[in-house]
Amino acid sequence: MSYDIAPLDTALVDALQAKVDGKTKPLGALGRLELLAMQIGRIQQTLTPSLTQPHVLVFAGDHGAAKAGVSAYPQDVTWQMVENFLAGGAAINVFARQMRLGLRIVDAGVAHDFGPREGLINGKIAAGTANYIEQPAMTPAQCDKAIRTGRKLAHSLAERGCNAVGFGEMGIGNTASASLITHGITGVPLPQLVGRGTGLDDAGLDRKQALLGTALARGGRPSDPLDVLAEYGGFEIAMMVGAMLGAAEKRMVLVIDGFIVTAALLVAHAMSPAVLDYCVFAHRSEEAGHRAQLAHLDAAPLYDLGLRLGEGTGAALAWPLLQAAVNFLNEMASFESAGVSGKE
Amino acid sequence: MSYDIAPLDTALVDALQAKVDGKTKPLGALGRLELLAMQIGRIQQTLTPSLTQPHVLVFAGDHGAAKAGVSAYPQDVTWQMVENFLAGGAAINVFARQMRLGLRIVDAGVAHDFGPREGLINGKIAAGTANYIEQPAMTPAQCDKAIRTGRKLAHSLAERGCNAVGFGEMGIGNTASASLITHGITGVPLPQLVGRGTGLDDAGLDRKQALLGTALARGGRPSDPLDVLAEYGGFEIAMMVGAMLGAAEKRMVLVIDGFIVTAALLVAHAMSPAVLDYCVFAHRSEEAGHRAQLAHLDAAPLYDLGLRLGEGTGAALAWPLLQAAVNFLNEMASFESAGVSGKE
Repeated sequence: MSYDIAPLDTALVDALQAKVDGKTKPLGALGRLELLAMQIGRIQQTLTPSLTQPHVLVFAGDHGAAKAGVSAYPQDVTWQMVENFLAGGAAINVFARQMRLGLRIVDAGVAHDFGPREGLINGKIAAGTANYIEQPAMTPAQCDKAIRTGRKLAHSLAERGCNAVGFGEMGIGNTASASLITHGITGVPLPQLVGRGTGLDDAGLDRKQALLGTALARGGRPSDPLDVLAEYGGFEIAMMVGAMLGAAEKRMVLVIDGFIVTAALLVAHAMSPAVLDYCVFAHRSEEAGHRAQLAHLDAAPLYDLGLRLGEGTGAALAWPLLQAAVNFLNEMASFESAGVSGKE
Repeated sequence: MSYDIAPLDTALVDALQAKVDGKTKPLGALGRLELLAMQIGRIQQTLTPSLTQPHVLVFAGDHGAAKAGVSAYPQDVTWQMVENFLAGGAAINVFARQMRLGLRIVDAGVAHDFGPREGLINGKIAAGTANYIEQPAMTPAQCDKAIRTGRKLAHSLAERGCNAVGFGEMGIGNTASASLITHGITGVPLPQLVGRGTGLDDAGLDRKQALLGTALARGGRPSDPLDVLAEYGGFEIAMMVGAMLGAAEKRMVLVIDGFIVTAALLVAHAMSPAVLDYCVFAHRSEEAGHRAQLAHLDAAPLYDLGLRLGEGTGAALAWPLLQAAVNFLNEMASFESAGVSGKE
């Protein structure tokens, strides 16, 4: 499959810069917000951008390797947390309500039968991936299907008028999967990319390191990003890859959360580098390895609050900054309109 | 005058921590937001804090030294920007609208006659301070009056149900004043505390450094923080000192903006150290010297977006994080209520 993602052109750069610089403030005084306003204007190809029907998508999936002990929590927590999302009680629910973001939960491959449920999108590829310590996590066909499903999902959001989407995930064991994928794409030594996830103690971290070393010895480091994804991925990660590519095709603003979401982006970026032009990096996660991912992408996140929750919570918390960037560009007076004197 | 500011007690610490830890998330996974929730709970002495009638106060004043050339902009910009605030066109208007914050502009000493105006609080001490290069910026009586006025202002906000207040300022030349005050309080060498303000070029920065050196040679470094304030202060800075002390007396949450606001806090803190318990530091400003102020107060701001605009814009932009801290504490499900399994 090929993706029709246009790199941002430079057509409006000068006009956007002039508009930013004409606002009643010292040149450059809004710092990162000015860069954000310029980026969103360029994505939307307008001097008056707006964020319409913004959404957070939370992709959930289970990992065969979770039963081998790569997480501090039992695998059942994945479906239990999906129930928590559907009931409105998780952190992402609270923050999405506060920021007025639409929230969609996607079952990409949870090992649980939810039945038809209000607010849950059924994209289930299978009831969890295979255990990558013993065999590839998914077949190429499963991987392809997950990506196509994610892409379609992004396209259908765009058709309903959404032009900005935050990415989030839930899946016990998925920091382990993200570590292997990140190693596969970037080549950064695996031990530097393995962290405590939901809260492993030292012994747990040692066990996780050893298990992932075993997985890597089996699966190696394929050169094709799709093979890396199929070898180690979760279905929720593969579906995010597709949704990211699909969202960028539709010129949406992509708000990137933490370690697992960025692992998906690494794959999407390896497949179609222009996706990066559409990305806003919300925060620097506490999870070991996020720093290396950001360095690989040469990305500077908006803030660093020591978050390591996932669910798209970091993306949701960054929303007011995106909105502020758009608002100052649209609503602030210019020196001329306000009758304020310029520099002497 | 003495201030009745109670240091935060430890009564609710354990109960707040238990509530935070019972939420459906890994322990500590909300990072700084967890600390913020605990702080606000302790300030309000409750496990269910709330932010009511939040406001940003923007204090405006002129500086005699502005005419000597310490700023890139002419002094008239102070009153012109106050007009811009009153017309709703400045950055702080845009952000306060977005975050639903009440906004009050306080004329602490602008060299301009506004007459009675909707939305403007007349607290004018005089039409600008004296030029501290030649004489003390204000008399002890003026300094005292500015502090009392600010304190009353905070008390009257509290009486109207406001329990959280962000601080902002406007005053051409006030980074220069803040540099002298910061040196006076902290003893950090003046040259490290002098920056480009609204955008001085290299020659302008050299001139500013020289002028402030002259001022310091004249006024010295008084040991009493009130004398430092009177010697070099702006009326807007002195009035903020009073408003900060008054707000902490009323157990309000104080949201601290950038370099000039933090200079006011240095004075307030020197007068009554417990004020610090009530402060949330919004951001790290680009203005040289803010880092040294934060180090002196051992304060860690929430974010670093390269802002250097003033007006309380950084404080306004931090508001959603305060709200998010309160919301997760009040609204998130617990492991027990959501039926989610704990750590293995």
